Amino acid sequence: MLSLPKQIEIHEEGPREGFQIERVGIPLADRAALVEALAETGLHQIQVASFVNPKRVPQMADAAELFAAIRRKPGVRYTGLWLNEQGFQRARATADVDLAGNLYFYASDAFSRQNNGAGAQEHAESQRRWITLYREAGLPVEGAYLMTAFGCNLEGEISEQRLGTSLQFIARLEHEEGVRIPVLMLADTVGYANPLSIRRRVNLAREVLPHARIGLHLHDTRGLGLANALAALQEGVDLFDASIAGLGGCPFCGNSHGGAAGNVCTEDLAFLCAEMGIATGLDLDRLLDAARLAERIIGRRLEGKLMHSGLPQRVAHARQASA
Amino acid sequence: MLSLPKQIEIHEEGPREGFQIERVGIPLADRAALVEALAETGLHQIQVASFVNPKRVPQMADAAELFAAIRRKPGVRYTGLWLNEQGFQRARATADVDLAGNLYFYASDAFSRQNNGAGAQEHAESQRRWITLYREAGLPVEGAYLMTAFGCNLEGEISEQRLGTSLQFIARLEHEEGVRIPVLMLADTVGYANPLSIRRRVNLAREVLPHARIGLHLHDTRGLGLANALAALQEGVDLFDASIAGLGGCPFCGNSHGGAAGNVCTEDLAFLCAEMGIATGLDLDRLLDAARLAERIIGRRLEGKLMHSGLPQRVAHARQASA
Repeated sequence: MLSLPKQIEIHEEGPREGFQIERVGIPLADRAALVEALAETGLHQIQVASFVNPKRVPQMADAAELFAAIRRKPGVRYTGLWLNEQGFQRARATADVDLAGNLYFYASDAFSRQNNGAGAQEHAESQRRWITLYREAGLPVEGAYLMTAFGCNLEGEISEQRLGTSLQFIARLEHEEGVRIPVLMLADTVGYANPLSIRRRVNLAREVLPHARIGLHLHDTRGLGLANALAALQEGVDLFDASIAGLGGCPFCGNSHGGAAGNVCTEDLAFLCAEMGIATGLDLDRLLDAARLAERIIGRRLEGKLMHSGLPQRVAHARQASA
Repeated sequence: MLSLPKQIEIHEEGPREGFQIERVGIPLADRAALVEALAETGLHQIQVASFVNPKRVPQMADAAELFAAIRRKPGVRYTGLWLNEQGFQRARATADVDLAGNLYFYASDAFSRQNNGAGAQEHAESQRRWITLYREAGLPVEGAYLMTAFGCNLEGEISEQRLGTSLQFIARLEHEEGVRIPVLMLADTVGYANPLSIRRRVNLAREVLPHARIGLHLHDTRGLGLANALAALQEGVDLFDASIAGLGGCPFCGNSHGGAAGNVCTEDLAFLCAEMGIATGLDLDRLLDAARLAERIIGRRLEGKLMHSGLPQRVAHARQASA
């Protein structure tokens, strides 16, 4: 292996990624219980819900009530997602949301147009406004997501040149707006990455944004999720988004084959790390409890593998990944 | 990446691995149709059925009828599995079985005892008899499987020292019996491998058996299947067993969490290779057709990911993996 990190950080996206595509009507108490179970696993950041248009995503209409229902555990951040100013103001008005000042960029022009009604460049320019809004709110810019960094269902593979253009815009924005973005998340939004492109694009991002910590938001759409995570670990990447039980998927990119898999699975990723001696700070037994709770709540077999097989026998080191 | 091979060979295990654990009563014509669909994908070797005790595995009771029902495609080998002399004689008596003279060894003593009623060493000694039987039948010894090469549910992780002992026995057996075993398959029978152990054990096997081509038989029990395959590819491994749609699993290692995943998935592995420019000779569209046929026949959602998401858009090179 090339240069595996000694420890990594996993941010949990399951509640937001998962519940936004599941049927409407999963009881609030169940969703709160899942977030509470996740907080017992050693996770330090859990994305609970999104503040988006309730007509478009009715599953998230009660985001504020969900935040209110959660018994908070000290040391855990409970974050929310917003994509427009109205959503941001709703999040700000909700007690107990740990506001994370993220910027969003798109490598795919068509995907940006579909999701934002604006092309990639126009949308990128609009992030200047967010820097101002966050500044006014006293919120540091803590990260940037570069969505569809590998490809999308509308444009296919995104070239490295196109990715480079997006990265260079972010570097220019930092300079022009006088802001340092400490974290850049390359998001494989709908499963276009492979181990070779992971390696090349992580290194490209490091070249263009040498001060930023590069993280990965991976989807397991085409089954390469953990292979891609391994390739990233081999490049020393130490920050990943993941979803318990593999919850998630893209609600607006349907297909005729029964629905694509969601995000890379938190407990399977944590297990991969534990088996290779990489500390995650996560308790695998408790992650499995949370994954099985998610399955019971949602009421269908979820994609996670370890949750269905159980941990290996007599492998004590795998049960406690924390150093 | 370290040293990816230019091309690899995938042997299909789905019909045997899959149907042996599924419900009894899947129509013979459906099973034959799946084998025929697999033969259209570019696969050169398909394990169709096992000749085992029909009382223990009633799903395989009609193995001979299944072989007879298949319309054969020239250039494709249709193999069967046997574990005792009776099974071998049944396979020999069945027209159209392409007999593959394989030997079987176990790194786990307890697993060998459970499956064979004999410990690992006693069972290994018994393989001398198979060399004689194959010789008498005019059949070359074409490979050896080393089962539970990474661990098992009874003993947990198998140490590298224990694996080394098994490998050294095979080397001694070759010398003493005057036979060259051209292929050694390291089998992760119930999902104990990780990318680091893959790397170390592939290299250990090469040290002890420097003339043998080392292949991998991987299970995705705990979700690490394709990450392990990637690690093997990075070591230059160019021979893999896999199962269409991820069919398979271990029928005799039950658990309370809803059943473990099966073998590493043929079409997802072929896709991983295609995305990295490694030729497999396989047609991904036809593999997806076969995977979806398997799902229709079996009547429940199968584990494969690509079969549910579809191929990426506008990525012509991924559709034809053959160089």
